[in-house]
Amino acid sequence: MTLPAEAGRHWILDLHGCPAGLLDDHDAIRDRLREVTDRFDLTLLGLQSHRFEPQGVTVVGLLAESHFSIHTWPETGFAAIDIFTCGHGDTLDEACRFLVEAFRAEESRLVRLSRGRTDADGRPLAPEPMTARSPVIGEDS
Amino acid sequence: MTLPAEAGRHWILDLHGCPAGLLDDHDAIRDRLREVTDRFDLTLLGLQSHRFEPQGVTVVGLLAESHFSIHTWPETGFAAIDIFTCGHGDTLDEACRFLVEAFRAEESRLVRLSRGRTDADGRPLAPEPMTARSPVIGEDS
Repeated sequence: MTLPAEAGRHWILDLHGCPAGLLDDHDAIRDRLREVTDRFDLTLLGLQSHRFEPQGVTVVGLLAESHFSIHTWPETGFAAIDIFTCGHGDTLDEACRFLVEAFRAEESRLVRLSRGRTDADGRPLAPEPMTARSPVIGEDS
Repeated sequence: MTLPAEAGRHWILDLHGCPAGLLDDHDAIRDRLREVTDRFDLTLLGLQSHRFEPQGVTVVGLLAESHFSIHTWPETGFAAIDIFTCGHGDTLDEACRFLVEAFRAEESRLVRLSRGRTDADGRPLAPEPMTARSPVIGEDS
């Protein structure tokens, strides 16, 4: 029997209740993304970023493993983070916990998706949440 | 009563059964991403891409609305596409149908996530699938 396959793992992290100043600091958010790639052995091939007016920052990293993005809404204390990798699933939870603390989020919600799934016969399956949607730091971590 | 709020909409599209040649054509995939942003009124602020050896392409677009990424695995005919926007939810299904046809996918699976959700009292909610995971072109489209 062949086991179901997947192409990559996509961790989708919503951070709520972050200090506005942290979410509007363009250079610091770029540095944070670089720091996460260094700490968690992701290979950053390129980085783009933009600071919006009157506020908000987007940083998108092209990884050898896929991509890593951070979008911020300082006015509501919200940040949307995506880390999509092939082959680094084991450390993504830890990376997310690091980000929750780095952005001093009061609350967080994480969805872990398996992308490019096929069943044992090679038939496509939907991108599937791997566990319940949950806080990163909470009852199930 | 205040309705639940959201920061953005994130369409997560898995394409299966695409011709390998299409998935390994770096310049064509860049052009395709530009074409979608033009057609669907997304504002492309920056574009990064990489062709992997021996195969595979990643293209990541930084949008005024958030981001747009395409990762391909020509060896298995798979492509993983993300379009994350604030404010363009109405045309994302159409953009996904365009991509399914452009990459000549035999099958597709789409998850539509609402990001940065809060309830009527401003309490954070998890990123929530807005409908069942489904083919883009199929029984529910």
